[in-house]
Amino acid sequence: MNKNFKLIIEYDGTHFFGWQKQKDKKTVQGEIEKALTRILNQKVKISGSGRTDAGVHAFGQVANFYADTNILPQKLKKGINSLIKDPVVIRECCVVEDKFHARYNAVSKEYRYVILNREDPCVIGRLYQWHIRSPLDLKAMKQCCQIILGKLDFKSFESTGSPRSSSIREVFFSDINPLEGDRIEFKICASGFLKYMVRNLMGTIVLAGLNKISVNEFVEILEARDRTKAGATAPAHGLFLKKVNYS
Amino acid sequence: MNKNFKLIIEYDGTHFFGWQKQKDKKTVQGEIEKALTRILNQKVKISGSGRTDAGVHAFGQVANFYADTNILPQKLKKGINSLIKDPVVIRECCVVEDKFHARYNAVSKEYRYVILNREDPCVIGRLYQWHIRSPLDLKAMKQCCQIILGKLDFKSFESTGSPRSSSIREVFFSDINPLEGDRIEFKICASGFLKYMVRNLMGTIVLAGLNKISVNEFVEILEARDRTKAGATAPAHGLFLKKVNYS
Repeated sequence: MNKNFKLIIEYDGTHFFGWQKQKDKKTVQGEIEKALTRILNQKVKISGSGRTDAGVHAFGQVANFYADTNILPQKLKKGINSLIKDPVVIRECCVVEDKFHARYNAVSKEYRYVILNREDPCVIGRLYQWHIRSPLDLKAMKQCCQIILGKLDFKSFESTGSPRSSSIREVFFSDINPLEGDRIEFKICASGFLKYMVRNLMGTIVLAGLNKISVNEFVEILEARDRTKAGATAPAHGLFLKKVNYS
Repeated sequence: MNKNFKLIIEYDGTHFFGWQKQKDKKTVQGEIEKALTRILNQKVKISGSGRTDAGVHAFGQVANFYADTNILPQKLKKGINSLIKDPVVIRECCVVEDKFHARYNAVSKEYRYVILNREDPCVIGRLYQWHIRSPLDLKAMKQCCQIILGKLDFKSFESTGSPRSSSIREVFFSDINPLEGDRIEFKICASGFLKYMVRNLMGTIVLAGLNKISVNEFVEILEARDRTKAGATAPAHGLFLKKVNYS
């Protein structure tokens, strides 16, 4: 009888062409499906909570899949982890109720974005942070974080190319704080995210941090519902999908 | 007239064969000397505060060198940083008094060692931490940290191959604490370090953390003044030279 398995997955996005399976390209979904198909001796298709772009990392991506097997989830987890040589690891594997769906049942997602803010080039941890040379105005950036709280239309921060019924999302938490070693961390939790939304927000918040736009102009950009008004997309390698929450 | 320049250097040790210049191998010292020789159009030899082994990282390695030049230190710093494409960066460059010597004038050095302590394989940041699967007893490890405080003979934690007049060193600070994300951090500050001393200490403290030796046995190992009694050398890639202090 088919069982529904839930996976929590950590990966270093550096060496992947993102989450979603693509022909002839190494993707997280593709590698996990390959391992599962080999272990379970049946074709397995996993559904992720959403895509992550090439280069984006994850501590807690969630996926589910159906398989007809009696193998214990702990054993399956160990099997996948020993089979995959790339920087991806299953952190949790369990059987859940049939109707659970990693994408449709997600009530919120948490992302973090790390910036190294110093004049000198980035050396240690350069695969995990965006290097910005000019000093950033943390106060202005924190104000932007407050502005995006609540149920809002994020069309200005949506890149084209992904189908969705609405560009309204609810942001539950959003803040920026300093970390050790000239780094700053943007944390955001929302009901869902549009394509490139965190990276587009980050790119525009950084414009406010560089005082290239005022906080009032940030509000205008949000209200314009026009992607061309907002800042550039921040690089993928500073972004981490931290957690997917379910009710 | 010859000036004495002091450098503070950060590097990711992953791609280097350590600090010290070696023929036909990429080393931090070698790359900096190459850049300096090219910029200053004269043969330059730099003296580091001490060697770091292949794979060991540094946030604050210190070196000095003499050169006959009128170039401003800030310009020299930028020149080196734009010339070196490897993960090494000059954080500070200044002219100091003639008698300053990065190695002989150092009064203490600070190291940190990072362990990822979880059953699952290490994925994000795997170049910067030692992965240990079995749970570590932090209390026992903290006790070991207390034992090595003070002026002691660290012969049991010294690997052979480096000339030194005495194996007595003074440890000013030593502690282990948890970090975010299943990681723990060993911090140590001492008057100086013997060859592989931090890594040999770490390898033996981990034995106590795994309850393979008791804290009393750790004391016996220290007192034995015999390298063969202590644990294995911890891997290089978890180690960071954090700071070199001068009076």
